[in-house]
Amino acid sequence: MSSSTPEPLTAAVLTVSDSSARGERSDLSGPAVGEALRLAGFEVVAKEIISDDQVPIQQAIARLTEKARLVVTTGGTGIAKRDVTPEATKAVCDRLLQGVAEKMRLEGGKKTRFAALSRGICGVRGQSVILNLPGSPNGAVDSLNAVIDLMPHALQLLSGNTKHQ
Amino acid sequence: MSSSTPEPLTAAVLTVSDSSARGERSDLSGPAVGEALRLAGFEVVAKEIISDDQVPIQQAIARLTEKARLVVTTGGTGIAKRDVTPEATKAVCDRLLQGVAEKMRLEGGKKTRFAALSRGICGVRGQSVILNLPGSPNGAVDSLNAVIDLMPHALQLLSGNTKHQ
Amino acid sequence: MSSSTPEPLTAAVLTVSDSSARGERSDLSGPAVGEALRLAGFEVVAKEIISDDQVPIQQAIARLTEKARLVVTTGGTGIAKRDVTPEATKAVCDRLLQGVAEKMRLEGGKKTRFAALSRGICGVRGQSVILNLPGSPNGAVDSLNAVIDLMPHALQLLSGNTKHQ
Repeated sequence: MSSSTPEPLTAAVLTVSDSSARGERSDLSGPAVGEALRLAGFEVVAKEIISDDQVPIQQAIARLTEKARLVVTTGGTGIAKRDVTPEATKAVCDRLLQGVAEKMRLEGGKKTRFAALSRGICGVRGQSVILNLPGSPNGAVDSLNAVIDLMPHALQLLSGNTKHQ
Repeated sequence: MSSSTPEPLTAAVLTVSDSSARGERSDLSGPAVGEALRLAGFEVVAKEIISDDQVPIQQAIARLTEKARLVVTTGGTGIAKRDVTPEATKAVCDRLLQGVAEKMRLEGGKKTRFAALSRGICGVRGQSVILNLPGSPNGAVDSLNAVIDLMPHALQLLSGNTKHQ
Repeated sequence: MSSSTPEPLTAAVLTVSDSSARGERSDLSGPAVGEALRLAGFEVVAKEIISDDQVPIQQAIARLTEKARLVVTTGGTGIAKRDVTPEATKAVCDRLLQGVAEKMRLEGGKKTRFAALSRGICGVRGQSVILNLPGSPNGAVDSLNAVIDLMPHALQLLSGNTKHQ
């Protein structure tokens, strides 16, 4: 894939976890996701940890999309009552990319049947893409790697470079 | 999978069919689904037959979630005008588990291409899971078996047992 | 599959493209999709080209469902700002057939990973089915061919022929 306008491949990582936000559990997923993003060619420009509260998550995502073209969350995608990351993400997205979420579950399902319970979504806000990953370090990195190769192209399209390739 | 709080694996079966509700056709799917649930370790605590009318279906689902942790419907997931089970289900769910519906269609598609026309959904209401199966006995049992192994874990998470496994 | 009421297999093709609507680019996808529909046994009764504007697309789809039982769009399903075909489609559909869109992406994903970025949907309006295909001629024909064999059965169900087969 060649591009006439080089894409600023900037990313932010938002760890969503009550216990990590309280400092009771060290955040292993955030650093693992950050490393996977760097390996994929992204510069990680921001990292935050936040508790599982919907409105603060929305505000954090919105703020991070000002700094980075790809905002990746980890945690809060399950079915327990406190899991609200998908709801927060949907609230701040202009449109959803259903196929990206499907692909994460499809690839994830090859490793664990519980991938089907993940409610993570992917959406667009302005020129940024927001991607929800599960909370476990392995699950998060596997889900990210299932779709990361789509992201440079997606971000290019959002930049207005819609030339057919 | 071990659990410190043993899960009450209770299920209810709701057959949605105009002809069965009128007594013109005997309900083969309800008993077939009930048997599959028992084989999977669930106790079937309630069975009902109802016609394809949205509001009564909603009321029946809501009532059955008071009695059972897993409420399984069969019928009304197609594309004909009278098929309204997914709409009724969505109306009484707190949140949807899109990946579970995807998995039913993905597995179903290995047997019949018409699985793609099923509009069945899966969602959560309180601490119960609601699962829409197609109306034919074979289709219903195949769809159930595609995802039943996720249900004990899902119900455990809904009980507040969110320990990572 | 036999039918007591033979199905009128009529189709319309709506090309959604700013450059084709302005006459700056010749429409290759519309004719390619039309040919694929004919090969699948459909009679193509209408063809239109329209720019990527949501309300006019909605009006065109609604108008074409009066003439044809299957309305196929090509273009406007991507993630760029001007891509609004799925939004226009959703606005005029009574209900969505999520599994059909999933299947297009699943099959498309076997040829190109970018299939996951397609936001195309499939839905029902009255007795007609509306299907969003991507804008490239190959992508459009491949996506159509992934699901076209479901359409005669779907249209039959929408005609009120719900006899179990």
